[in-house]
Amino acid sequence: MNKKVILYTLGNMLKIEGLLMLLPALTGLIYHEFASVYYLAVGVFISIIGYFMSYKKPKNKKIYAKEGFVIVAFSWICLSIFGALPFWLSGEIPSYIDALFEIVSGFTTTGSSILNDIESLSHAHLFWRSFSHWIGGMGILVFVVAFLPDVSGSTLHILKAEMPGPIVGKLVSKVKVTSRLLYKIYAVLTIMEVILLMFGGMPFFDSLLNAFGTAGTGGFAIKNASIAYYNSAYFDMIITIFMILFGINFNIIYFIVIKKYAMAFKSEEVRWYLAIIACATLVISLNIMQLYPSLIDAFRYAVFQVASIITTTGFVTADYEQWPLLSQIILFLLMFLGACAGSTGGGIKVSRFMISIKGALAEMKHMIHPHSVHSIKFEGNHIEKSVLENIHTYFMLYVMVFCISLLVISLQNIDFTSAFSAVATCISNVGPGFGIVGPTGNFSSLSDLSKLVLSFDMLAGRLEIFPILMIFSKSLWKR
Amino acid sequence: MNKKVILYTLGNMLKIEGLLMLLPALTGLIYHEFASVYYLAVGVFISIIGYFMSYKKPKNKKIYAKEGFVIVAFSWICLSIFGALPFWLSGEIPSYIDALFEIVSGFTTTGSSILNDIESLSHAHLFWRSFSHWIGGMGILVFVVAFLPDVSGSTLHILKAEMPGPIVGKLVSKVKVTSRLLYKIYAVLTIMEVILLMFGGMPFFDSLLNAFGTAGTGGFAIKNASIAYYNSAYFDMIITIFMILFGINFNIIYFIVIKKYAMAFKSEEVRWYLAIIACATLVISLNIMQLYPSLIDAFRYAVFQVASIITTTGFVTADYEQWPLLSQIILFLLMFLGACAGSTGGGIKVSRFMISIKGALAEMKHMIHPHSVHSIKFEGNHIEKSVLENIHTYFMLYVMVFCISLLVISLQNIDFTSAFSAVATCISNVGPGFGIVGPTGNFSSLSDLSKLVLSFDMLAGRLEIFPILMIFSKSLWKR
Repeated sequence: MNKKVILYTLGNMLKIEGLLMLLPALTGLIYHEFASVYYLAVGVFISIIGYFMSYKKPKNKKIYAKEGFVIVAFSWICLSIFGALPFWLSGEIPSYIDALFEIVSGFTTTGSSILNDIESLSHAHLFWRSFSHWIGGMGILVFVVAFLPDVSGSTLHILKAEMPGPIVGKLVSKVKVTSRLLYKIYAVLTIMEVILLMFGGMPFFDSLLNAFGTAGTGGFAIKNASIAYYNSAYFDMIITIFMILFGINFNIIYFIVIKKYAMAFKSEEVRWYLAIIACATLVISLNIMQLYPSLIDAFRYAVFQVASIITTTGFVTADYEQWPLLSQIILFLLMFLGACAGSTGGGIKVSRFMISIKGALAEMKHMIHPHSVHSIKFEGNHIEKSVLENIHTYFMLYVMVFCISLLVISLQNIDFTSAFSAVATCISNVGPGFGIVGPTGNFSSLSDLSKLVLSFDMLAGRLEIFPILMIFSKSLWKR
Repeated sequence: MNKKVILYTLGNMLKIEGLLMLLPALTGLIYHEFASVYYLAVGVFISIIGYFMSYKKPKNKKIYAKEGFVIVAFSWICLSIFGALPFWLSGEIPSYIDALFEIVSGFTTTGSSILNDIESLSHAHLFWRSFSHWIGGMGILVFVVAFLPDVSGSTLHILKAEMPGPIVGKLVSKVKVTSRLLYKIYAVLTIMEVILLMFGGMPFFDSLLNAFGTAGTGGFAIKNASIAYYNSAYFDMIITIFMILFGINFNIIYFIVIKKYAMAFKSEEVRWYLAIIACATLVISLNIMQLYPSLIDAFRYAVFQVASIITTTGFVTADYEQWPLLSQIILFLLMFLGACAGSTGGGIKVSRFMISIKGALAEMKHMIHPHSVHSIKFEGNHIEKSVLENIHTYFMLYVMVFCISLLVISLQNIDFTSAFSAVATCISNVGPGFGIVGPTGNFSSLSDLSKLVLSFDMLAGRLEIFPILMIFSKSLWKR
């Protein structure tokens, strides 16, 4: 284990976090809020720590798979531990565990909240909360890799561990170029959303923060009623479109940006992703029709909620618990499904399901004709057995983490649906669930133990289980 | 596809079913019930059909994997379609779909019922209901293979497809010897339970039928209050012990029978199975302590319910929905887990989970040290990759069947927990679930569509997904 390079990268990450805290500090200054001071103080504090940690450049910059996992896991844990400090120090979130839950929910782009009254928060905090979605969406380490000149070593393993989705093709070796390009597309799309929201009359502050929430597929709203507050078909439409967009693989978005639409539409995953959105929206629209004045209204709420859940954003414009069971079950299943690999969305990912369904069908054929060989293809590539094994391991660990979390959560005697959906929504980084953690509820009434377990689940979900479990593995630490 | 051998085996199966219907007919005679006539009539009718179907012995008796799947799937479907007739013809279950659901629930050893008043049923029907558990527990085709002299060809594939659990070791080629031995152990244990129940003062009829329900891990009770009706610690204890016993791999029970206890206890699966029962019972006992007069009472109800659910029997002595959430969640998870492979129990099976957890841990080690190779062992055997792949395919198909069923069930606007647990309890062949299908409820209020889907799920669960899905596969039917 190359501990020096781990310490060095963590130090750089902390310096970046300290720097990023200047933005909420600035926000606080603009609004004459005292909260500003906490961001400055914490920002300076962690920058100093980061400075000392990364003071000595490691001679051996080699990062192998295991260093990659450790760096990613600890970066995200440190990011959250320090990121929660301003909430707590300012007293606006009096419990540190609540503050931690809130910022983990932010960075992991979950959007589950322990706040009963979001609107009473300082602007600085509101900014930091939503901005954490934006940082976490693309990945803090992708940022480090992209913009720090001196960590240009073998950082491929960091990206592998931080980027969502199964690794099918080979990642390009020009990691720095890729990461910068990703962040550029990400920033441009975010700015476009801000402009379009402002064009509809939304204040700049709201537009920016809602765009952060959309881009990171996070879902922290700055109003208690979430996006329903604005009650505007235009805003719903814009946010729906951008949610769907940010749920698409960024490689594909790149094709769209350079106007190679045919290339983009050739992606199996994207086609299935869009088809699932279309089907789910159609069924839910018809299912909830009688609850709304017209089919168009039903469609507006249906497509928003479908896009919000499948992309694991978690914004809400309707209390979907009032919808018939069929609509609720569709949303519930979409929670697990998630968006495309290589997007900012959480969940299990469309591609994982597709590959393993293809694998299952091939295995069934093999059982029928035991002497035949059936290879599977995805996105035009032949899928190696090792990819399939990796996906199945992911599923297994996902189920294990889910079950153990559910057991611990159920120590608190809440109802079945709330407990089950709380774990589901956190591990999939969605945000709202059903029951007490439903679209009109929040996570404030859960016990501290439950909040810690769910924070773990959010991190496990965002980092796709492996890195966060591996730090508990003996074989990672032994020489 | 060797259609002649399929027809021939199906014919033999029907003759056996016709023969078995003599037993409820006899029961009806003893109790002077007119229902008896329907069993005689249907029994003769299907025996004649069976006679004509198996009139001509096929020259080519080869049964390959694909014929095995077809035989097993169609046998179970025919068994159910004809087995439901007496219920329906007698008018005691007026709807054919209800009758079908009830008998599928019987043969698949699920134990979910559509009856609001079980006790009003004729004795002949009560007998047939419970006896169907006993037939289905070990498998009707195992019976055919064991006792018909002329299907001694290559019947290994039938057994493979009908017997629960992943196939780890090689099945012995002396299929007939094995099947007979299995049925002998099965019968002896059942008789032992009958005697022990009668010893405690339970009437013969009740003892026999409850023993059928236990042996097949079925769970049809003959009283509306299930086993709680007898309100006897002695009966609870006897049934608990036998439920646990019937959840064990019959190979291991064979070791116990021949008093090779050490050999039996060497089985990893059995040790885990017993350990899980012990842990679950301990936690639930402590969790429900305050609801009962003493810890011993709590233990009595806890161990009964744990054994009933993990073995997927489904007998009930307590309304576990009144228990705290933790206990409910434990029971809910045990529903999926199921008992040991090679037992009469349903569910996913302890061994499947163990092998795939071992596989996941090995894969994690491989990710940490990409150049190392990690093989996995189970029950002392090296596990081939193909076994792991088969298990993962099983999981994938399980999830797919689960999700699609859930969507169809939710067309009926019931509550989330009821819908979710109805599918879970049927696909795992448990019996009771939560909500309206909970320990004090039943399946009568579900729509016909839901009942059909759940019947499909019960069959899919009992036959471990593959055979029942494969009959929809194009590649099975093409030359």
